[in-house]
Amino acid sequence: MVRPFRWDSERKVLQLLDQRRLPSEETWIECAEADQAGDAIREMAVRGAPAIGIVAAYAVVLGFARDAGNAPASRFEDLAAALLNTRPTAVNLGAAIARMRTRLESLVTDSAAERVRGLEAEADRIAAEDLEANRRLGTLGMGLLTGEGPARVLTHCNAGSLATSGYGTALGIVRALVESGREVEVFAPETRPYLQGARLTAWELMADGIPVTLVTDGMVGSLLAARDMDAVVVGADRIAANGDSANKIGTYQAAVLAKEHGVPFLVAAPFSSVDLETPTGAEIPIEERRPEEIVEIAGTRIAPEGVPVWNPAFDVTPARYITAIVTERGIAHPPFAASLARLGGTSGIT
Amino acid sequence: MVRPFRWDSERKVLQLLDQRRLPSEETWIECAEADQAGDAIREMAVRGAPAIGIVAAYAVVLGFARDAGNAPASRFEDLAAALLNTRPTAVNLGAAIARMRTRLESLVTDSAAERVRGLEAEADRIAAEDLEANRRLGTLGMGLLTGEGPARVLTHCNAGSLATSGYGTALGIVRALVESGREVEVFAPETRPYLQGARLTAWELMADGIPVTLVTDGMVGSLLAARDMDAVVVGADRIAANGDSANKIGTYQAAVLAKEHGVPFLVAAPFSSVDLETPTGAEIPIEERRPEEIVEIAGTRIAPEGVPVWNPAFDVTPARYITAIVTERGIAHPPFAASLARLGGTSGIT
Repeated sequence: MVRPFRWDSERKVLQLLDQRRLPSEETWIECAEADQAGDAIREMAVRGAPAIGIVAAYAVVLGFARDAGNAPASRFEDLAAALLNTRPTAVNLGAAIARMRTRLESLVTDSAAERVRGLEAEADRIAAEDLEANRRLGTLGMGLLTGEGPARVLTHCNAGSLATSGYGTALGIVRALVESGREVEVFAPETRPYLQGARLTAWELMADGIPVTLVTDGMVGSLLAARDMDAVVVGADRIAANGDSANKIGTYQAAVLAKEHGVPFLVAAPFSSVDLETPTGAEIPIEERRPEEIVEIAGTRIAPEGVPVWNPAFDVTPARYITAIVTERGIAHPPFAASLARLGGTSGIT
Repeated sequence: MVRPFRWDSERKVLQLLDQRRLPSEETWIECAEADQAGDAIREMAVRGAPAIGIVAAYAVVLGFARDAGNAPASRFEDLAAALLNTRPTAVNLGAAIARMRTRLESLVTDSAAERVRGLEAEADRIAAEDLEANRRLGTLGMGLLTGEGPARVLTHCNAGSLATSGYGTALGIVRALVESGREVEVFAPETRPYLQGARLTAWELMADGIPVTLVTDGMVGSLLAARDMDAVVVGADRIAANGDSANKIGTYQAAVLAKEHGVPFLVAAPFSSVDLETPTGAEIPIEERRPEEIVEIAGTRIAPEGVPVWNPAFDVTPARYITAIVTERGIAHPPFAASLARLGGTSGIT
């Protein structure tokens, strides 16, 4: 199983698999400073809501390990502000930073080394909990794909090992199915502009020997019409209190198409992606990225100079298109306002 | 206005704008032999159902201009078989060849030069009629986009000057709106894998000063949700007798999304794209193309080696998603079986 990061505790260094260079190269970026990790998030060397939350947590550790300068509280807020500024849509980033802040505040020590150890323990715990949450939600979500024969799953973008601490959310359900002995076929739209489906989902599934077929984003409707699909399963960058879910651009239309074809549409995410403070999808900030991501592919210009471009990185799928939201705390069914609030009141995994 | 081909009558040579190299280069391919024109169709140096019909007609002229060999009828059938084999979905190719056959059979001459002149006159006529049909259907279709303020039109692929003899079908409606003085905004999905939207639609609209915004294929749903769109307007490679319409992959899901958002979905095509011999979309052959078109972009590999790929070039939009079919003979409304048959009984433009 692939993991998108390695934490070197001895050297206090975070290594990130540079996802921009996959699948042609496996290059690791070494981050010794917090701003290197922040740059890696902004430039999408690492991406996926759970993964960027974990990386932000380790970035805080790096910030304290390298700089014993000014007062811890103000140092933390400088680090937090810079990290929160990297990508606005995923709630996990903010959630991870909030946990690090709470941990820092609870540390009763004047020793810089002890402070780093305490923060490091919290980052390790965020990473470990994410892995455990993925395995748990994978097992729960698997129960929604009953039926005979091979399970056919359409996903979008990459909500797999590379987007998390290593098992995946949407692809965690796929892995749980495979581990249960069920035959599985995954269909992966390439997910322009960043091509996470072609470059990352195809790569990590092939690495694990799980059958995957690549299509373009324009083939989703035809695929749903042509094949009996058991489910469309996607991840989420933020889930509002009413169930509206932000995820990679293209997810919304996949949900509309799933509904039109009578195929269940499942959102799989750790409960840390649920933001009960955000009432509906309308309040989720949607990041717009540079036009260059669309008009250039691998350094080659594919559109006329000066063409206006719209490049939102995410879209919001209204709750009415979602069959179920699978978290490690349990499966939320419509109406989501009630079911998510109920799961929010439970303690989660320990 | 851009034109995708030039016929040099004096030298009996067909020049084709190499659409694979747009927008970065305007390169013209010179075809002196029929099989060069056939290769250009197969390799998509020229594409778009009306344009490949016209090019096939000139290819027949080239075949007779260069080879005064065996008997005309068998020579014609050899040429026809090779040309029909280049791309299976568009009906215009077969229709153009059928017209050339009829013309050849009607020629009462033993002079090779006269035979070439006769065939050339027919090819010229097919091209001229296509241009006239585009202008006429553009004007008719414009009437379906009433309303105040700028007309916002979402298209897919390229059904413009580059796909026809020069004015366009879907983009012919856009050009007619512009000529009528209406402000128009076009939204062009890039249309993977071949990127006709990014490379061709954006380029030809910018060349004519028509505002265009480029998006990825995964943004169509979000765009329809975010903006008041007046219509989704697309071309067609073949329209069955019941109105089911084959067009570039991605069209079907655009139609589903248009319906979900209450936006009219218009198919614009010369009546030569209507195939009354094909009862429904189920009988339209759908070309599958090489995986390389998806896994490589501009020579760069973007997916793992050996990944399985599904690459249908077209999809079929069932008639129930289509608001109207705009042809130069008139506008067909549902039920299309009756309205298309009625238009089929009229004489068309003269």
